[in-house]
Amino acid sequence: MENRAVFMQGTNNMTFKDVEMPKLSEKDVLIKVDTVGICGSDVHYYQHGRIGDFIVNGDFILGHECAGEVVEVGSEVKNLAVGDRVCLEPGKTCGKCEFCKEGKYNLCPDVEFFATPPYHGVLQNYVKHPEDMCFKLPDNVSNMEGALVEPLAVGLHAASIGEVKLGDTVVIFGTGCIGLVTLLSCKARGASNIIVVDVLENRLKMAEKLGATSVINAKEKNVIKEIESLTDGKGANVVIDTAGAEATVKQTVDVVKRGGVIVLVGMTPKDEVSFNFMKLMGKEGEVRTIFRYRNLYPVAINAIASGSINVKQIVSHEFDFEHTKEAFDFVVNNASEVVKAVIKIN
Amino acid sequence: MENRAVFMQGTNNMTFKDVEMPKLSEKDVLIKVDTVGICGSDVHYYQHGRIGDFIVNGDFILGHECAGEVVEVGSEVKNLAVGDRVCLEPGKTCGKCEFCKEGKYNLCPDVEFFATPPYHGVLQNYVKHPEDMCFKLPDNVSNMEGALVEPLAVGLHAASIGEVKLGDTVVIFGTGCIGLVTLLSCKARGASNIIVVDVLENRLKMAEKLGATSVINAKEKNVIKEIESLTDGKGANVVIDTAGAEATVKQTVDVVKRGGVIVLVGMTPKDEVSFNFMKLMGKEGEVRTIFRYRNLYPVAINAIASGSINVKQIVSHEFDFEHTKEAFDFVVNNASEVVKAVIKIN
Amino acid sequence: MENRAVFMQGTNNMTFKDVEMPKLSEKDVLIKVDTVGICGSDVHYYQHGRIGDFIVNGDFILGHECAGEVVEVGSEVKNLAVGDRVCLEPGKTCGKCEFCKEGKYNLCPDVEFFATPPYHGVLQNYVKHPEDMCFKLPDNVSNMEGALVEPLAVGLHAASIGEVKLGDTVVIFGTGCIGLVTLLSCKARGASNIIVVDVLENRLKMAEKLGATSVINAKEKNVIKEIESLTDGKGANVVIDTAGAEATVKQTVDVVKRGGVIVLVGMTPKDEVSFNFMKLMGKEGEVRTIFRYRNLYPVAINAIASGSINVKQIVSHEFDFEHTKEAFDFVVNNASEVVKAVIKIN
Amino acid sequence: MENRAVFMQGTNNMTFKDVEMPKLSEKDVLIKVDTVGICGSDVHYYQHGRIGDFIVNGDFILGHECAGEVVEVGSEVKNLAVGDRVCLEPGKTCGKCEFCKEGKYNLCPDVEFFATPPYHGVLQNYVKHPEDMCFKLPDNVSNMEGALVEPLAVGLHAASIGEVKLGDTVVIFGTGCIGLVTLLSCKARGASNIIVVDVLENRLKMAEKLGATSVINAKEKNVIKEIESLTDGKGANVVIDTAGAEATVKQTVDVVKRGGVIVLVGMTPKDEVSFNFMKLMGKEGEVRTIFRYRNLYPVAINAIASGSINVKQIVSHEFDFEHTKEAFDFVVNNASEVVKAVIKIN
Repeated sequence: MENRAVFMQGTNNMTFKDVEMPKLSEKDVLIKVDTVGICGSDVHYYQHGRIGDFIVNGDFILGHECAGEVVEVGSEVKNLAVGDRVCLEPGKTCGKCEFCKEGKYNLCPDVEFFATPPYHGVLQNYVKHPEDMCFKLPDNVSNMEGALVEPLAVGLHAASIGEVKLGDTVVIFGTGCIGLVTLLSCKARGASNIIVVDVLENRLKMAEKLGATSVINAKEKNVIKEIESLTDGKGANVVIDTAGAEATVKQTVDVVKRGGVIVLVGMTPKDEVSFNFMKLMGKEGEVRTIFRYRNLYPVAINAIASGSINVKQIVSHEFDFEHTKEAFDFVVNNASEVVKAVIKIN
Repeated sequence: MENRAVFMQGTNNMTFKDVEMPKLSEKDVLIKVDTVGICGSDVHYYQHGRIGDFIVNGDFILGHECAGEVVEVGSEVKNLAVGDRVCLEPGKTCGKCEFCKEGKYNLCPDVEFFATPPYHGVLQNYVKHPEDMCFKLPDNVSNMEGALVEPLAVGLHAASIGEVKLGDTVVIFGTGCIGLVTLLSCKARGASNIIVVDVLENRLKMAEKLGATSVINAKEKNVIKEIESLTDGKGANVVIDTAGAEATVKQTVDVVKRGGVIVLVGMTPKDEVSFNFMKLMGKEGEVRTIFRYRNLYPVAINAIASGSINVKQIVSHEFDFEHTKEAFDFVVNNASEVVKAVIKIN
Repeated sequence: MENRAVFMQGTNNMTFKDVEMPKLSEKDVLIKVDTVGICGSDVHYYQHGRIGDFIVNGDFILGHECAGEVVEVGSEVKNLAVGDRVCLEPGKTCGKCEFCKEGKYNLCPDVEFFATPPYHGVLQNYVKHPEDMCFKLPDNVSNMEGALVEPLAVGLHAASIGEVKLGDTVVIFGTGCIGLVTLLSCKARGASNIIVVDVLENRLKMAEKLGATSVINAKEKNVIKEIESLTDGKGANVVIDTAGAEATVKQTVDVVKRGGVIVLVGMTPKDEVSFNFMKLMGKEGEVRTIFRYRNLYPVAINAIASGSINVKQIVSHEFDFEHTKEAFDFVVNNASEVVKAVIKIN
Repeated sequence: MENRAVFMQGTNNMTFKDVEMPKLSEKDVLIKVDTVGICGSDVHYYQHGRIGDFIVNGDFILGHECAGEVVEVGSEVKNLAVGDRVCLEPGKTCGKCEFCKEGKYNLCPDVEFFATPPYHGVLQNYVKHPEDMCFKLPDNVSNMEGALVEPLAVGLHAASIGEVKLGDTVVIFGTGCIGLVTLLSCKARGASNIIVVDVLENRLKMAEKLGATSVINAKEKNVIKEIESLTDGKGANVVIDTAGAEATVKQTVDVVKRGGVIVLVGMTPKDEVSFNFMKLMGKEGEVRTIFRYRNLYPVAINAIASGSINVKQIVSHEFDFEHTKEAFDFVVNNASEVVKAVIKIN
């Protein structure tokens, strides 16, 4: 077996190189990568070479949304076998700190996350990963769906932190990939009334197809008045911002119900946003945030396998491994058109 | 307008009588009753004249699951109008005690509940009820479905107290009306794997039709072994007993997962059941119970209106008002066949 | 019995007038008012004639923190008797809306709150109030302490919404009355490490006396560095802002631990505050708010009676009824010196 | 450095033997054991050679409640240094299973727990332990108190699972060591009214000394009537059984309030207990259980250091290492007199 990876080389450039086959530790498995999703963060590194304090030094392998087949197992691996298809949760955590012990391992300060410098990603033929971070896919869940578990977990975490429940009215700002998986997650938890807001008509159409009960084009309508009218003047139980625009973050407090919950998911371009906390206090509202996700891969797989969530609908474009650079360039140049692009490795 | 009611007269007997039109208080509405579901408790009063300490004295009007049309409103009614179709939450609570104030109004010791002595039920042409206990039905929810909101609320409360969530594995013992609405409720909250146990083959077929992923006939299979095999030896996140049999209550602890939750819904014939608390402690499990429901009528209506729950599937038999006694007798004599019988009043 | 009240008459002016004895409804009790605490909101109305949209029209009775003796009971009163000493929860709510039914009655849109226009307050000899909003004081809780239950309930609600628990590290910004009752509340819930921040040295001394484990004078020290050093660089589990300054609201996110909770209690002068939501997201932090309180009068009384909270320590000044205007003027002119002033009515 | 351990040899017999010094892994520390508490489970193994399926084979070292001094650290140890005093959380868990990842590591099926066969305990001069399971003691917490953190954690977990909160009324059955640390834990969380029930007068006196507001001798009084009278007929918010008697488990449901919580802590002699689930359902009550504890060592240390809990009061007898057998024999023969016996090793 030989291994080859695609590296970003400087910004907006990529190159293929042969890399060594990973050496397994006792509890690792070796995965032949099948499908890798391209995430907004991958594209950001590709274009800018950094995200905040995380800076790419030298050639770097991107990709952290993936699924593939187990082709070798370490000596102490118990629950996986050669031939199993798995999806990979990309963050290896310490298991020892207070956050890990309390079940909030997504807050572990020592996490090693695929494609977050200095840890390489999965755009290669073979990767190793600890057994306990590889989740077996049932027969009725494809590798493509497996690769989509990662972004779906973000949506599931947003809906979970927002405590979206059966019968709820939810407002979602933003129809990017994360907005749409959040929509699927809210729907799967039983939300009755899901109002989606964006400025792109094609995306709003997609939101409707995926289960939005109402969509609002913020270019054409007064968002606050529309939501007021759609909720009998009460506002939404849960408001989730995945757009990360200053304007949408500010609007959350206008459209949330008394006693309701706002969840911030999208990163804003500026760190600080001017926010009407007085209005929030008058409603005894809350602003919650999410950082990645935790304990949701089994939930995501169950939800896909049982038909509660049809996640493959969000894939808009497929590329093969040889055209990875073309894939990234296409995503860069067609941001509003691409919902989710995936690379088929093998 | 004239009003007529059907009274149980002694046990296993009924008679019709003219009754006065209700006089509305300021915050009451007058409802022309359209549909009334027959509940197990109605049938129990009909046969035995009592349930525990609640004893029927004299002629008594049964029925507490109902929907109908508002035909008059009190002077201070704000949110309902003549012509609105509504379903009625049957328990009037004090609003002043600690339980009411904390939102657990179902525990209010001063509740006045339709068809629980000494409070008459709704098997009559017209009833009055406080506006805030009448919930408007949207156009796409029928009166029939409105009458079914009451039993559905029990299932929703069971699933809510059990904290059933997306991706969960749930075991439900019993396929009576409450077992089946619990199944619908768990499914609507996103449970991926719902295992239903009973001894009646026709009911298990119905459970499958309503969304059970597996059914087990306890007469034919070893329930504990079957569930072990269906859950990779782990047991279920949530186990809900609606059967109320000593055997099923005892089995709950065998099939619940470590850290899992058992919810008891069905009344057992004897007060006491011998239970393996040592096994429960080894799993750090919990046994929760429910008493009626609270704050779930709006949830139920939203879930029906949005298509998350198709509750009308549970109706197996319809009768007209004139044949109320026949309806009760039929239910008594065909218990295993009847899932839910309803009376059309007008 | 004759009744006399003190009215604010325009701003910064007061006058006494005879008023009618209240007429009791069936479920009301008549209270001979003994002690009334002066709240910041009373003082704000006195000085400015309004708080936001609540505008004083004509002469107006202030005061909503009070305790006294039951001197008459309505015909349906069950749990109180003449001679009982009680404290009064000032907000009468509808008991019918969704917020009331869910136990969040503090969010009831139809609340009638003492001394919030158009509802007069309690600075008078006699007031009536519904029995269920009057809480009996045990023998070892004085009327003075009873009057302090109202502000204490705010602190208890802040600590409760922040889920402060045994062993926690808490930061409290502000040492006004609400800051100090929040401190008492956190301590009573078992917080081990309570860091209090303010700019007034005399208040910080008081905070130490009341149980703060560390105090920081923000004029003299770098608040963020101090807290970092006091928490091993981890930040606090819960950060509660009672100061309502733009600077303190902004600092909350710097001193909260990963996964921690911020609670905003103090009203800021401007509605909007520029806030670093990106930092909040990096920590998966939450910003919660409180609006008054709910279901906490019994808790407050139990905590005082059992010695968990010594609330009377916060009283810094007492005045008699005849000198109510002088009391208000004194508070206006000695804001930094007065923690809590009370009026003894009888 | 030489190491010596005391082994149980058959039942009711002990012998000293030299043992090898532990070899440290990278993340281990070596602890010179100072104080070891004797737990009921140690005594049970000593007398019977087994607890349920855990069977002692050959000579076996008991003891799992301990504190001591770090005398050597592995190469990757970061947060501890030679000279630090620490207490040891006795269960090493896998960190990989779903229970560990969700923060419920006490349910990890692969736990290795001190003095639970086949894993030896700490009654020896030196033991090694992973750094992350050793918790540094502040200067004002003694080794004796450090050794008591283990049983205290059980009490804290009981109070936490019961959600005991400020102002609550709690009933505790049993005044053994676990009953008393549960009492201390409930008090530290702010319970106002703690009623303790037992049959031993000397223990009830101790409970009063430790903060019980009422004690009931079940031999002399009618427990149910007494509690009814002490709670205005309402029952307790939380009822915790640490006695493990069939009679006390049964009584829990009689004395719990509507909507209240029962926590079972004490192991019953028989697996099954006949329980009135109908009464539980009428109250919508819950029966919760605990298995050991999780994430509570830091809480316990904070609570001791800050003075919220004075745990050393529970120590009734001290022995030196040479008299370990005498200590065990004394405990066996004076069960009602010994609350907690400890062994000073060095």
